[in-house]
Amino acid sequence: MGAARVARLATADAAGRPHVVPVTFAVDGDTLYTAVDQKPKRTTALKRLDNISARPDVSLLVDHYDEDWDRLWWVRLDGRARVVDDGPEHDRGVQLLVAKYEQYRARPPAGPVIVIEVTGRRTWSASPG
Amino acid sequence: MGAARVARLATADAAGRPHVVPVTFAVDGDTLYTAVDQKPKRTTALKRLDNISARPDVSLLVDHYDEDWDRLWWVRLDGRARVVDDGPEHDRGVQLLVAKYEQYRARPPAGPVIVIEVTGRRTWSASPG
Repeated sequence: MGAARVARLATADAAGRPHVVPVTFAVDGDTLYTAVDQKPKRTTALKRLDNISARPDVSLLVDHYDEDWDRLWWVRLDGRARVVDDGPEHDRGVQLLVAKYEQYRARPPAGPVIVIEVTGRRTWSASPG
Repeated sequence: MGAARVARLATADAAGRPHVVPVTFAVDGDTLYTAVDQKPKRTTALKRLDNISARPDVSLLVDHYDEDWDRLWWVRLDGRARVVDDGPEHDRGVQLLVAKYEQYRARPPAGPVIVIEVTGRRTWSASPG
């Protein structure tokens, strides 16, 4: 699951309305990191960060779609998120993301890092084994 | 966007905690349908339905991942969802899903249909045009 290239991060705003965005991510044990690029999607980035500040609960999904529905699977992680603007934890997240994604090497993510402490994990697969 | 084969549906529970699952879907104007298979993922299905009963606000994402990050795009629809167990609206949703996915032809979704009235739409693309 940690090798997947993209995940979808769901947050909720202060009123409890859900919001979902695609994210790159890196996993280190029970901690997951994702970052904000500080690129055109600025509005979205702020929404995501605002939501986490209001409500730290998040849900993150990695799934595999296949036209053979016997090959579908997904993993969902629930956790508590924090927004980290700088410092060692921020740098650790950036380091892991740059190591995983060569696209970040020329241009590491320049915005805040979202640190997620995973509290629950659910996996589903259409086919056992 | 309506041609995409999978979307991710975010809901929130009564306490405002987000939840995200992959879904098949069909679009008809400003209405979007997804259904519950009544298969092994029964627990998940119930969670999703419980959430919509508690809070009708949902957020649905279709995104394209590509190793060339200039080709990334996504579309997010926000809306209000209802769970429909039977009747014409249920049957309309099943009909559209079966028409879109040949996988459903032998075995149409047997559970409730989630009907989403789209109230907001946001699209993002890494490259203009």
